[in-house]
This record gives sequence, structure tokens and C-alpha cells, in this order.
Amino acid sequence: MGTKGKVIKCKAAIAWEAGKPLCIEEVEVAPPKAHEVRVQIIAAGLCRSDTHVISPKFEGAFLPVILGHEGAGIVESVGPGVTNVKPGDKVIPLYIPHCRKCKFCLSPLTNFCEKFCKGKNPLIEQELMEDKTSRFTCKGKSIYHFFGISAFSQYTVVKDINLAKIDDDANLERVCLLGCGFSTGYGAAINTAKVTPGSTCAVFGLGGVGLSAIIGCKTAGASRIIAIDINSDKFPKAKALGATDCLNPKELNKPVQDVIVEMTNGGVDFAIDCAGGSEVMKATVECTTVGWGLCTFVGVNLADKGLAISPMELIMGRTLKGTNFGGWDAETVPKLVSDYKNGKFDLDALVTHTLPFDKINEALNLLNQGKSIRTVLIF
Amino acid sequence: MGTKGKVIKCKAAIAWEAGKPLCIEEVEVAPPKAHEVRVQIIAAGLCRSDTHVISPKFEGAFLPVILGHEGAGIVESVGPGVTNVKPGDKVIPLYIPHCRKCKFCLSPLTNFCEKFCKGKNPLIEQELMEDKTSRFTCKGKSIYHFFGISAFSQYTVVKDINLAKIDDDANLERVCLLGCGFSTGYGAAINTAKVTPGSTCAVFGLGGVGLSAIIGCKTAGASRIIAIDINSDKFPKAKALGATDCLNPKELNKPVQDVIVEMTNGGVDFAIDCAGGSEVMKATVECTTVGWGLCTFVGVNLADKGLAISPMELIMGRTLKGTNFGGWDAETVPKLVSDYKNGKFDLDALVTHTLPFDKINEALNLLNQGKSIRTVLIF
Repeated sequence: MGTKGKVIKCKAAIAWEAGKPLCIEEVEVAPPKAHEVRVQIIAAGLCRSDTHVISPKFEGAFLPVILGHEGAGIVESVGPGVTNVKPGDKVIPLYIPHCRKCKFCLSPLTNFCEKFCKGKNPLIEQELMEDKTSRFTCKGKSIYHFFGISAFSQYTVVKDINLAKIDDDANLERVCLLGCGFSTGYGAAINTAKVTPGSTCAVFGLGGVGLSAIIGCKTAGASRIIAIDINSDKFPKAKALGATDCLNPKELNKPVQDVIVEMTNGGVDFAIDCAGGSEVMKATVECTTVGWGLCTFVGVNLADKGLAISPMELIMGRTLKGTNFGGWDAETVPKLVSDYKNGKFDLDALVTHTLPFDKINEALNLLNQGKSIRTVLIF
Repeated sequence: MGTKGKVIKCKAAIAWEAGKPLCIEEVEVAPPKAHEVRVQIIAAGLCRSDTHVISPKFEGAFLPVILGHEGAGIVESVGPGVTNVKPGDKVIPLYIPHCRKCKFCLSPLTNFCEKFCKGKNPLIEQELMEDKTSRFTCKGKSIYHFFGISAFSQYTVVKDINLAKIDDDANLERVCLLGCGFSTGYGAAINTAKVTPGSTCAVFGLGGVGLSAIIGCKTAGASRIIAIDINSDKFPKAKALGATDCLNPKELNKPVQDVIVEMTNGGVDFAIDCAGGSEVMKATVECTTVGWGLCTFVGVNLADKGLAISPMELIMGRTLKGTNFGGWDAETVPKLVSDYKNGKFDLDALVTHTLPFDKINEALNLLNQGKSIRTVLIF
């Protein structure tokens, strides 16, 4: 009667072509092979990175693909050799694997794993399983995985080292956000920037990641949190989450970094760029104080030409860092789940919409129109 | 009989025009005003930054000027209000002041002072005293100060907050190098990068600063120190000071960063750029490991277009920092002098030439031809 060892037919959202809506299709999901786990997805958030990959501007996407990298679910079955999870366990799939053996996994300095770093662009690789085949088939065609997760399917197959096992009583409709957006922004402030009590902060970009960075700055005890976005509709939420000031660069008559430097008598201690793009990167650097200004870069903008930085910016005492998934890994995400349960931070405020999975294109439209922070899709 | 309160006539090297040799002239050095100190220079090193300012490529130099910012001397007299030094004290003038009162001086995070940061380009300002006048006159013309120091004069006037008082038995012909080159490179490794025991390091540029960075890496316990320069003549000295490998990018058939990544199975933990320029900056970033590679920038190259950095370099776990005078200040330089006396590091190896002050143009030629590391001028 069980599904273990058998192909599962279920619904998934497939991106057949760049720039087109996703299609809800019946897919076949093969059983997990060695060190693989088949997971029933219960809830998933929609993140900007999902839309990047199917943008016509994006080069090098693997299509057709099942997107989604911010999900939570329940283990349906495990392949040979899997010891970290068992059927029935609640899990969050993570796009950064954690083998617990390599020099990266063993170092306290990073949340990377050798299996993650070896790729040319690990942020968009993991399009196939370890044996270079896919577990998804639709209409006779092999469908690519995404980020090693492919959460936009009722069932998916992921590597065991890409799974965080979480508490049995975890609310999957909320903790799915710990799979990317919340963890990235919150961790950028807490783990990467290590925002200090009483400090001044600037957060650029008030999507799910940026708002989570604000939550992180507030949790860390920042005394002033300046929130910046070109969409002023985001400001009430930013203020509710801890922003003390909100700035819309489009409504200013001088560069936003100059305004921030004036407001803070020389610049903020910490700036976090959750938007990306050359202009915002430049503003992120220039809005920090000389002497010890610390800039953390989170966002990668599709049209990004990067940052042209003079050595003088650095020699004047600034530090530039980047964060990837906020510094968390499969060992620490379960602790984040506990922190959420214990009320250390709120995830409700980030969820502006909840929709059934098959309305995923509606969720995409809301995101693209700047009308949602996070839509949680229920499977 | 004393000189206190009187104008002193003495010799100084004046840069009248960009691109021309310096001229040894008789100058008049006015007595120190409030919070100023007149210092008899005993020895001074010649640093690359001195030559930058008189390069025809350099815009915005204040001429005529008395250069020199790596000197050591003895206090001749003090102006009203000076309490930190008295006549007869041995001192090293520092181009970064230290008022001990501002938010920068009071912070452990930086060696900056408010009086240093307020300028547009503090690295080349301080061309006049606080009252916007000069203490130097030659042939009836007012001569600019340089970096607040002007060490290429038998007597100079500096602000009290720009002086480090050092031990009476300090060897001024060596500790003059603590005024810039040695401290900058050594501190880049020790204070800014905080090189860790057993780590791998790459140091770009083997002038006085780069060799001092190697000393710093070795003192910190690095297990491998890769030294890079386009002049292989520098390699024996680099090896003598602690370099384990030397690379000349001109003799390689692929980019030096690729060679370093291969040599170290993924990149070094720490890279220090003591050369400057877009190419070297790029190599500095790319030769470090993903996950935790830390790049420290020291050099500013005249022809510098800066670094075009993709956010991905940072998001893959790299950190970019800069150092200014290696993180030292008037409070910590005296400790460096003690460390030298106690044999913690050697300065002799950096001094390739010793010349009488009036042969300063010979010293400039040696530096420009890459034949010297440091020439110490004796006054």
C-alpha cells in the first residue's frame, strides 16, 4: 500500500520556458537513491531568486525545471544509507548542503560545504542529483531540479545532507520561510554583520530578506535602524518590525547615502544590502562611517555590474562582507525553529498572502508587482 | 643661548615642482604655537608615498612642500599647552593624529581620530597647521607641510597629538621606520587581518610595506606565506623574512591567483595587497578561499581605477578590509618600539641603504629603480 520504493505521481509547477507562467502538471517522482530522501512538501514560500532563474535576462538556466527553494515538509521515504532522517520526520530542505566532514563543514568560520563550493556558481547549480540524473519526469521528459530542492512539487527528492530535521511540532506553514528568506536576512544581521547593541544600521531593500534583516538588527539591539526602499508601501511594515526611519531614494533631492550620513553624524555602523545592483552597493558602502563601517551584501541583482570600489573606501576603515543563507546550516536551522517557537522572532508579519499551491502564478504576480512580501503556498 | 621661541635656520629638502629632484635649501622653521612641538629630526625613511605626491600624474599636490612622513627625532621645544612631550624626549611623528577624546580615539575598533577623518582625503592632507599657516619659510616663500610631519627637514613642527613619545634608549635610525612602512605592513597582518596560527597567506608587493607584512604573517604563526612581486630581485629578502614561496606573475603562464589557488588547494586564508592597482586588487580577492578568505588592502596605486567586484565574490564568504597605518596609533607605537628593542621583530633587514640626508635624491633614485627597500637618511 505504501509509496516507498515506488514512483509517485503528483502535481508540480513546471517552468518550461523563460518568461512564461509556470504550469501545474502531473509529474512522476522517482524513489530516492542512496543518500537521498523523498519529501512531501507541505508549505513553501516564493522567493525572488525563483523568479530570477526564469527571467529572460538570466543566462544559463536549466529548463524545464521545478523551482522552489523555501519549503518545509515531511519525509515520505529514504534511500539506502540515510541516517539523519526517517519517514515521518519534519524537515526543511536547504540549498547549502552540510556533509559534516569537509574542511568547510568542520570550520566555525563558514556555513559552506565542499559540495556547495565546488561549483562555478553554486547559487544556481544543483540542477541534478549526485548521479547526474533527475528524479522528475513529466510527459516523458526529464525535468531539472532547482537548488537541490524543487519545493514547488507535492513530492520532491533531495540529498540527505541538504536536510535540516526539525521539531515534530513545528508549524510548517511558517518555518518554511527559514529555508531561505528569513534566515538569510536575519542571519546577515546576527551572524555575518554581528550587529552590536546600541549601534546604527541601514537596511536597503524591504522584501522578505530586508525585513528579516530589520528583525535581526532589532533583535541584536540596534538603537537606530534606517530602512530604505523605492516602494514606500513597504514602510509601515518595516516600522512595525523595528525600523526607526524610512527613506525612499526617489523622494530625496540628494543621494540617499548623503542623507544617511547627515542623519547619523558621519554614517551608520552597519549597512546591509538586500537589494543588489551597482547603485545600491555603492550607497551601502558610502552610508557607513569611516573607521569601522561594516557592509554586508546579500542581494544579487540580475542586471548587476558589481561594485566599482576605490581602495580608499577600505583604507578608511570599512569592511565588506557577504552572506549566503545568513550563515546558517543544517545544524543551526533546527535551533532557529526552536527560537521561532519560543517567540524570539515573529514570522507572521512576513506572510502577506497564503494561497493554495495551484495558484502559484498569482503568487508570482503579487511578488513581481511588489504587492506581497511572502506568499506561502499550501500543498 | 637656546633656540626655544626663536626661528631656527636649517636644511630641508624642498619639492618646488612636480617631477623635479628635491632641492636641499636653507629654511626658516618658526617656533611652535599652541599645542605644537618643534622636533629635531635625527633619521627618516623614504617611503613610496613621498614620491607619489611629487609625481606629475598626481593631482592636487600642495607645492612647494617639504616631504617625509617616516621620521624619528628629539623634541627641541614645545608650544603652550603641550603636556604629552617635553624638550629632549625622543618621538616618532605620526600622520594619524590621536586626540584621545573623540569617538574614534575612544573606540577600540579604529586607530582614526576625528581630526584625521574630517578631510576629503586625509591621506594627503594636513598640509598646514591648525591655524591654516605654515611654520616653514624658504627664500621668503611659505612652504607647505606634508602629512602633518615634513620629516625631510632638520627641524620640523608638528601637532602634539601627532607625536608618539618613545623610550629614551630607542635607536632612532631604525625605529623611524615605525612611522610608516613597517607599522603599516606588520599591522596589516597582525591588527587588521589578524592572521591566525597555521594559516596560509599571500602578500602582494615586496617593498618595505609588503616585507613588513611578511614579518607580521610569520610572527602570527602562518604556516605558508606566498610572496608575489614582478621584481624577482626581491625574493631572497622575502624568503629570509619568512616567505615560503615566491611568485613572479611575469614568469607565469596563467594568472597568479590561479596558481595560488592550485598551490593551496582552493586559495589562501589571508591575502594582503601592498602593491595596489586594479589588477593586483583583483588577484588579491581571487587568490583567497571561498568561505572565509580575508583580503586586506594597504596600497593605493596612483593609476588606480579601483576594484570592480561582483557581489558574488563577497557572497561566497570573502571579506574585504583596508588598513591605514596598520591600525597603530600614538598609544600603541611606543609598544612597537619596545617590541623591537625586545627582539620581537627585526628592522635591519628592511634597511638596504643608509645615506646622509643631503643625498636624498640618490635615495629617491634607488627607490624608483627598485634597488632599495628602505634608505634611512641620517640628518
